[in-house]
Amino acid sequence: MKSDPIEEVVLANRWFQIVARSSLDSTAPHYCLKTLDYVCIVAKNSAGELLLVRQFRPVLWQTSLEIPSGHVEPGQTPEQAARAELLEETGHEAEHFELLANMSPDTGRLGNRLWCFFAANAVPTRDPEHQLESGIEFVRYRGTVAELAQSTEFCSALHHAALFAAVIQGKLKI
Amino acid sequence: MKSDPIEEVVLANRWFQIVARSSLDSTAPHYCLKTLDYVCIVAKNSAGELLLVRQFRPVLWQTSLEIPSGHVEPGQTPEQAARAELLEETGHEAEHFELLANMSPDTGRLGNRLWCFFAANAVPTRDPEHQLESGIEFVRYRGTVAELAQSTEFCSALHHAALFAAVIQGKLKI
Repeated sequence: MKSDPIEEVVLANRWFQIVARSSLDSTAPHYCLKTLDYVCIVAKNSAGELLLVRQFRPVLWQTSLEIPSGHVEPGQTPEQAARAELLEETGHEAEHFELLANMSPDTGRLGNRLWCFFAANAVPTRDPEHQLESGIEFVRYRGTVAELAQSTEFCSALHHAALFAAVIQGKLKI
Repeated sequence: MKSDPIEEVVLANRWFQIVARSSLDSTAPHYCLKTLDYVCIVAKNSAGELLLVRQFRPVLWQTSLEIPSGHVEPGQTPEQAARAELLEETGHEAEHFELLANMSPDTGRLGNRLWCFFAANAVPTRDPEHQLESGIEFVRYRGTVAELAQSTEFCSALHHAALFAAVIQGKLKI
């Protein structure tokens, strides 16, 4: 068993910290990016369409097709964050949110967790005041999961992992 | 179309850079972690066992069960990196390495790419001098893919994504 980590923050901004982690028995520190947990939602409507979003991603410097996702903000549970993100990004709500998986987004570098949820029978919100998050295009996806997973635009490995969990647990067919 | 990004390195070490990306039409920079591309390998031996590795992960501060993985070092192709990692971490080689997918490991924060390979009929190296990488335990996995994906120790979302690609392309059964 390793002794408890000794941590030093080497960079901090409002989005994340870079933390140098070491222990008494290690020689060099390991640099870890600490940020809020991630949440993502595999959501279907009653027609069986997947609810997706398309947005510009600065790290790719192009748009990406993804499942709805975001951070677990302080004070939120992962499920509350999932409900909020689905509503903000797609204008949809669902009665039941089922936790599919809790994983590490990157065991080499990221210190947060990824919570994957499944929501069936998602419906448009009845709130007439609701406005979709700006800069995000809502997409109802009618193709197969296999086609989606093999399209270059659906490139987030984390969202492939969420779809896989849904498939394994019998929520989606390939 | 966004104008080309303007980049400023705000932190650099031998493993990665934190880069602030902005464009003439954006107000705030986006902070991106730039590092070498990742490679991971879904490898099976002739008995149908998956070749896995168990190692201590400083960001988790515990061990993690994963598929073999690593960086694409400068001068390597992704396939060369995959061959090198499989050999170093499991002592196995394979004739054919098939590219399963090229994805973004995290469209929100990571600026590199993840290359997932499949190798069937992996065999122990005949090199009598070969030594496994220290600190890594080689594991021949005999269970089902569904059991593996639902075990808490196999927690790397990136490696779930690689398994999913192998399943979709008919290389593995759930």
